[in-house]
Formats: sequence, structure tokens, C-alpha cells
Amino acid sequence: MPAKAPIELWFEFASTYSYLGLEAATKLDIPVRYRPFLLGPLFAAQGYTDSPFNLYPRKGRYMLRDMERLCLDAGLPWQKPSRFPRNGLLAARIAIGHETAPWLTAFCSQVYRANFGYDREISDASVLSEILTELGVDAQAAIERAHSPEVKHALKAQTSRADELGMFGAPTWLVGDELFWGADRMPQAVALWKRNAEVGA
Amino acid sequence: MPAKAPIELWFEFASTYSYLGLEAATKLDIPVRYRPFLLGPLFAAQGYTDSPFNLYPRKGRYMLRDMERLCLDAGLPWQKPSRFPRNGLLAARIAIGHETAPWLTAFCSQVYRANFGYDREISDASVLSEILTELGVDAQAAIERAHSPEVKHALKAQTSRADELGMFGAPTWLVGDELFWGADRMPQAVALWKRNAEVGA
Repeated sequence: MPAKAPIELWFEFASTYSYLGLEAATKLDIPVRYRPFLLGPLFAAQGYTDSPFNLYPRKGRYMLRDMERLCLDAGLPWQKPSRFPRNGLLAARIAIGHETAPWLTAFCSQVYRANFGYDREISDASVLSEILTELGVDAQAAIERAHSPEVKHALKAQTSRADELGMFGAPTWLVGDELFWGADRMPQAVALWKRNAEVGA
Repeated sequence: MPAKAPIELWFEFASTYSYLGLEAATKLDIPVRYRPFLLGPLFAAQGYTDSPFNLYPRKGRYMLRDMERLCLDAGLPWQKPSRFPRNGLLAARIAIGHETAPWLTAFCSQVYRANFGYDREISDASVLSEILTELGVDAQAAIERAHSPEVKHALKAQTSRADELGMFGAPTWLVGDELFWGADRMPQAVALWKRNAEVGA
């Protein structure tokens, strides 16, 4: 791989820990490529019929408390979601349809805050439309683009790629062909990226 | 709880990440109480028929690579175990039967290194006996004590307590009634312990 390829953050809008990963990634001083994908098909392939946090309620309860503490530490808004997981399909299509837009990371951040900071329904187009409008984006055009066959295909292809890479959860950091699962593996992923960059320099 | 109660590390000898947790705990400059327990009954209560790393092979493959990287970073020996998980019952009984012994943490460390650093069979009494002897401990007496009704009961009670506390995996740090799951949550657990100690001081 090219030594200076960006570090990649693979994330799912339904995923609580992806919220932490996305927020942390936006503060990095190295290039990041943002890769929205869908966990649903990967979970199904592993035999999960729902989020593991719902299948294993004890783990789910712990996750909510862990998120509450970690968001407090990170200065991020947190509210226990009244519905979990929410469907992040439309948000993911908007993100992948605008992956080079200057507002991409702000949009992702606001979607996570809506879902996990303010308990809003991110599968609702009106919620996403409001976020886009507040960012000064033409919401109708962005959502139309999200519904295009090209964008639908791109998200399917990205999800298949996540599967081929061996991913099983989100967020996942990708550096070369090394996976680092979890927001809390960012330091290890960044350290590897920097070692690779030095070798390539 | 008393503000100066030690931080607690709950661990299982069969668990890879407990190896990292134990090694990290021994380097802390605050008091630690070591709590061996058995994950098997807790897994069974959640509906797992085997280690989640075996039930979800993709997660299992990732865990092995993650451990390899983390052990390298931490300067710890690592070798992919030819059997996973190994039965940690006898080792846990020896540990809980000697929880105030000066050799407790050295014993735990050597059991983890045997299992995950050198691929040795820790359910084999002769392996544990060798470790004890190298530590200058009367191995026969220690193993006899491990088989006593009192020690068997203590390990059952400790495992039940883990269940009552809502644990679902290992290692788990306990500070007051707050659980922190995973070797990588040690900083958060220590920070809370220090905040509690300040308030109590």
C-alpha cells in the first residue's frame, strides 16, 4: 500500500462506539478517510439476529453506562437512546454520496449527536434534512443524491468490502490491511500509520 | 464503600485479555485486589455454548491478531494457543486459596505466560506445580489446599458475586459498584478510584 494512504475509519451510524470513533477521528492531525458502511449484513453473516447489545442484555446495559461515562469524559452529549439500534441507512447513503464534501464530518458528527446525544430518530428524513440545512447544505439535493442507484451501489460495495476485509463490528480503523476494532484502538492504529509513513518517507 | 478500598481486578485464567489486565495491574502504584473467577457459568447464563471467540470465528481471528500486537507493544511473550479456551479451574483455585500470599501475582503472571506466551496446558497440575516450585512455593501443599472444600466454595462464591455484580466478561475492573470491562479500560477505572480516594481523604 502507498505509505501515505490515509488512515481509514469504518463506521455505522447505528453504532454507539462509532460515535466516539468519529468524534476522535475528526481531532486527528493526520489524513483520515471516512468509510460509512452497514453492520446489519455483517452481523447477519455471523448469525446475529439483532445487535449483540440486544441479544446479550447484560452487555447492552454495560455499554450504555460505558458510553455515558466516556461521553462525559470526552465532553460529548449523551442520552440513552429510546430506540436501539436505529436504522442508519439513509444517513450512510448521504455520507457516501458526499464523501469529498467539506461538510462530511460535520454532518456525521451531527447525525451521531442526534441519535445518541438527543435521542432523535435518524432514520427520519426530516431529521437528516434539518441537519443538512443547518450546515448550509441543499438538503433536498443531498437526499435525492442519496437515493440514486449509483450511491445505493456504492454503499453496498463498501459494505461488501468491509466483509471481505474481515470486519465484524464498528468502528474499525484500517491501516494497510490491519484492522483495529473499537474507538479505543485509535492510538494503536495511529501509531501503525505513523510507522508506515516513516518507512515510506 | 470505603474510599480507600483497593481497585479490584476480576480475571479468568482462560481469558486472553485477562493476561493483559493482570500484567498491567501489577504495575499500578495503587492497591489492587485480585479476584479470580470462572467465566464459564456467566457465559452459560448468557446463552453462550462456548467462548464467544469460538462462536464468532471472525472475532476470534481478530482477537488473536490484536493480542499478538498488544503483547508486542507491552513486551509480553505471546504464542497463539493451540487450545482455546483452556480450563483455568485449578489455577483459579490455587489463586483464591492463596490470595494474601506474597507470590500471588507472580503465580498469576506465570500461569498467563504459560497459557498464552508458551502454549502450555494450564489445566495440567504438573504445569502449575512446576510454576509454584520455581517460585519457591511448596507445590504439593498449595495444590492440596486448592482441592479443599473451603477453597472450592470460595471460588464458587466469588463467581456468583461476579454474576450478581453484572459481569459478563473478563477482565473486569471494579471500583465501588462501577464495572469497567476490558484490559483497556484500566485508565478509566484508575481515574475513578483516584477521584473516590480524594473525596474520601
